[in-house]
Amino acid sequence: MADARLIAYLDACDADALVTADPGLVRMLAGHATEVGFGPSPFQLPTVVVAARDAPVQLVCSADEAPEREGVHAYEGFTIAPIDPLAGALAALERAVAAGGAGPARTLVDGANVPAGLMPAIEGGFAAPIAGLAALTAVKTDAEVAAVEAALRLCEAGHAAARAATHEGAGELQLWTAVAAAIEAAAGARTTVIADLLTGPRTEEIGGPPVVRSLADGELVLADIVPRLDGIWGDSCATWALGEPPPAAVEMHAVASRALEVGLAALRPGATAGDVDRAVRAEVESAGHFYAHHTGHGLGFRWHEEPRIIPDGATVIEPGMVVALEPGAYRGGLGVRVEVVSVVTDEGCRVLSRHPLGLDAGASAGPPA
Amino acid sequence: MADARLIAYLDACDADALVTADPGLVRMLAGHATEVGFGPSPFQLPTVVVAARDAPVQLVCSADEAPEREGVHAYEGFTIAPIDPLAGALAALERAVAAGGAGPARTLVDGANVPAGLMPAIEGGFAAPIAGLAALTAVKTDAEVAAVEAALRLCEAGHAAARAATHEGAGELQLWTAVAAAIEAAAGARTTVIADLLTGPRTEEIGGPPVVRSLADGELVLADIVPRLDGIWGDSCATWALGEPPPAAVEMHAVASRALEVGLAALRPGATAGDVDRAVRAEVESAGHFYAHHTGHGLGFRWHEEPRIIPDGATVIEPGMVVALEPGAYRGGLGVRVEVVSVVTDEGCRVLSRHPLGLDAGASAGPPA
Repeated sequence: MADARLIAYLDACDADALVTADPGLVRMLAGHATEVGFGPSPFQLPTVVVAARDAPVQLVCSADEAPEREGVHAYEGFTIAPIDPLAGALAALERAVAAGGAGPARTLVDGANVPAGLMPAIEGGFAAPIAGLAALTAVKTDAEVAAVEAALRLCEAGHAAARAATHEGAGELQLWTAVAAAIEAAAGARTTVIADLLTGPRTEEIGGPPVVRSLADGELVLADIVPRLDGIWGDSCATWALGEPPPAAVEMHAVASRALEVGLAALRPGATAGDVDRAVRAEVESAGHFYAHHTGHGLGFRWHEEPRIIPDGATVIEPGMVVALEPGAYRGGLGVRVEVVSVVTDEGCRVLSRHPLGLDAGASAGPPA
Repeated sequence: MADARLIAYLDACDADALVTADPGLVRMLAGHATEVGFGPSPFQLPTVVVAARDAPVQLVCSADEAPEREGVHAYEGFTIAPIDPLAGALAALERAVAAGGAGPARTLVDGANVPAGLMPAIEGGFAAPIAGLAALTAVKTDAEVAAVEAALRLCEAGHAAARAATHEGAGELQLWTAVAAAIEAAAGARTTVIADLLTGPRTEEIGGPPVVRSLADGELVLADIVPRLDGIWGDSCATWALGEPPPAAVEMHAVASRALEVGLAALRPGATAGDVDRAVRAEVESAGHFYAHHTGHGLGFRWHEEPRIIPDGATVIEPGMVVALEPGAYRGGLGVRVEVVSVVTDEGCRVLSRHPLGLDAGASAGPPA
């Protein structure tokens, strides 16, 4: 009945249940997408799951977001009466722990996400080991891969809009508005989107939100677009130029693109994350370039999760992992990065992204096969 | 040295320090605006303050958002090395507690916001009483009132854009895009915005985000726009029609507008929140209408805080409180709400909002004096 990934983690920790308020784990274990876009609400606490070895997953949330089904323990949300969501959530969690069938002494608590005020409901619970908690979401089911693909379709809408809005004098915030509008139109709803959006010399800064700055002819646009759809994150980066790019940018784009191909060839079961990182980083460095960031990362339940493709990364790549690879090159007032998301297969990987990667603003070709 | 509001709270609780991760209290006590728009980050925990009676406020945050000043305890944020932000934040909080000079046995902990995994740094800390914690932010300093006014200027940019985009066939999401673009242009930066945006019969539903729905002639638009600028929230609602509104909407708008005037007259030092609620609600009900929500609420550090203007609300209105009043009427496929924000003065209140409240989409008049 319980998720096999959860069982493996509980086995490794000699535990019977996990209590977490990580929105990614809430989505994975309870299938519930909780709102994350506005910060804490005065009317509710973070949504919590109690996931036990031998009982159905229990969800603790305010009535305002409670789905209609078994195993949901709702407390009052928005109200015109006095509010005390901590008391409400605590009582609901006590019911959930009882219904979840977990002996508290064998319950792991996600201490980074569960609010301290809920601990009285989990007396005797002990700290969930971090590394295993991070690894829990790395391998996806087919349905979860499909959900990432749906989020990637939003990425593509965003990239198409940003390229179409690439004109002399266009502001970074205007490009961002085009991205957000296209994503929300494609989703049919307001959508949480993290985005790097940099133009001109700012592209060398690698990342950051759009600022008040207008695009000039020959400058680069670097857009890394990360939307959340139904609780699942997509990710995507491309770099293009308005008009004729500087020769150095053309070279850097070629280097990053080759490195991405190298990464896709290296991303296969049995390789370690460090193997993939080393191959991609070496390709960029052999061309005399350099990037200070990771080579890639898992994504889906969080916008950055295992397998983290970093130097000496020990995680062994497995089928079903969903991985973004994003090599770049940054120097002399120029920054270039290309990124696609793949799912690891039995033999290698299959690219899921379809946004254009070309340096020409009008590029429409798909990513590397 | 310490905030007088904090001292009063600590006195009432017989405590020497407060540890909280409420972004509103972090802003109030440390002057620090932490990001809230994207949910938990794999690289950091919520930003924490340690605010003691006899020591400077201490801030615990990741290096990625650490301001350059005394009393900041930063831990590693984004990195290509293995990550364990809980361990980093815990060690930084231990340093902050030591530097903050608080005896742990007399330290209040905001259990709704502080992650459980940080509790080992606050051994012996006890649960911060909720009511006092909620009341802590109610009365604002002059600088804080000015910060709310700056956020209200963003509200006005949003309302102007939404009214300008009010055309036959305009979608709710298109209206929302116009709002967001105008606010971000005015702020010069990406901005977290909560918004109700409803059209046509959906206005009767009181609130909710925009959906895929197009506006038709004679229909209402209800927009409640709540942006966050430098960690401080604004708030604003208006309702207008495309073309000629139904007579019932004209009447409901007149009722809500009169009720708002009644509320502004009632909002004065010495009145209770319940007094203000009763006066406004009675004005609407005497006209045969009804609203199921609060009459208003404090705002600034949170988008809804004390004084909550609710039935039987016992909070006594004081100078310096910043209050949104938002009476409405909802019936028969129509919903109307008007809202302005005021600061309570020695004699009454002063309206801070300037967005138009008229039912005519082209209305530009300011709010009631």
